[in-house]
Amino acid sequence: MGLIIPMKPDEIEKRSFKIIDNEAGDHGFPHDQWTIVRRMIHTTADFDYIRTVRFHPEAIRAGIRAIRQGQNIVTDTEMVRAGIRKADLESFGVKVFCFMNEPAVIRKSKETGITRAAAAADHGALFTTDGIYTIGNAPTALLRLTDLLEQGVARPALVIGLPVGFVNAAESKTALLNAGVPFISNLGRKGGSNVAASVVNALIKLAIEEAT
Amino acid sequence: MGLIIPMKPDEIEKRSFKIIDNEAGDHGFPHDQWTIVRRMIHTTADFDYIRTVRFHPEAIRAGIRAIRQGQNIVTDTEMVRAGIRKADLESFGVKVFCFMNEPAVIRKSKETGITRAAAAADHGALFTTDGIYTIGNAPTALLRLTDLLEQGVARPALVIGLPVGFVNAAESKTALLNAGVPFISNLGRKGGSNVAASVVNALIKLAIEEAT
Repeated sequence: MGLIIPMKPDEIEKRSFKIIDNEAGDHGFPHDQWTIVRRMIHTTADFDYIRTVRFHPEAIRAGIRAIRQGQNIVTDTEMVRAGIRKADLESFGVKVFCFMNEPAVIRKSKETGITRAAAAADHGALFTTDGIYTIGNAPTALLRLTDLLEQGVARPALVIGLPVGFVNAAESKTALLNAGVPFISNLGRKGGSNVAASVVNALIKLAIEEAT
Repeated sequence: MGLIIPMKPDEIEKRSFKIIDNEAGDHGFPHDQWTIVRRMIHTTADFDYIRTVRFHPEAIRAGIRAIRQGQNIVTDTEMVRAGIRKADLESFGVKVFCFMNEPAVIRKSKETGITRAAAAADHGALFTTDGIYTIGNAPTALLRLTDLLEQGVARPALVIGLPVGFVNAAESKTALLNAGVPFISNLGRKGGSNVAASVVNALIKLAIEEAT
């Protein structure tokens, strides 16, 4: 282990970001978008996101505003919730919810045969008016949410739509891109709870930057 | 959304696995290894793992045995812990711990300047004798663990070493491959909390298969 130099966490992050900046080259993203894309790459070691990420023009402003206003964040899985830096959200008064293990959600899923993720979307929609709805796992959750957006039942300020998978993940993201709501998403199958959490954490950074 | 056929969760998983099987082609993994690699791909939509995954010859047997014996699982992050299907572990009596937010760990990190992940490894090592140590995020945690393995302080049955990142992630995994302990790991920068959790969940599936 002689060749590995011990570093403090903030040094490791700084050095990681420098490596990503160098390897990404001339990516063309403005500062705020790059803050987000770079963190997606940092979390996955996957430069594909440079090519596949999609931002609604109002997305970042809407996300920062929601955080600064102390609006709720709802996540589709406990993993996304665990990955969000909740300590940094306390000063803004933001709360993070996940309804996957809510008894009413489990019951609804059993009774109707829809996925728990979809049942949780029905439940979560009511909690994210002017807030941030974050999906990192289940395409069924994002599909359900786009239905609720169309019906006007869900009115979040921003949807972070990054489900992963081989069945309906890409399709659910296409639906989001056409849903008429600010989004941060990507094309294709890739995504995940870690990527979705990284986007929220980058938005928190931007909100803190703005507040100071 | 007319083209998307609603499906039940187990149908979605079955169909996803079929797509992965088809696209992976002739991968050459035996059933037990493929159960794990396929779930890594399912979680990330990234076929790179076929090429980069590495199994110690005793790894899967050791992992299944640890689960069936009800040994502890320790994770480096709350995200990994959140991603593990704990309900499926109850019948085996397995408990899942993460020590990142333990007051003693936070204090040690502050006092010594090492990362919290590394301080948590010191703490976690004692809980995983004959159990499973799972790292999905911090290279510093895996580096620390390999030190503890060398010193004989840590004696887990299996290390799942899948940290992600640009600083020391690849190096920490090389160290694990030479640490003389059963491992499931991969080459390079990729990895993550989601991938690490997926490996544990695949092992749980194999343990259940064996028990029935």
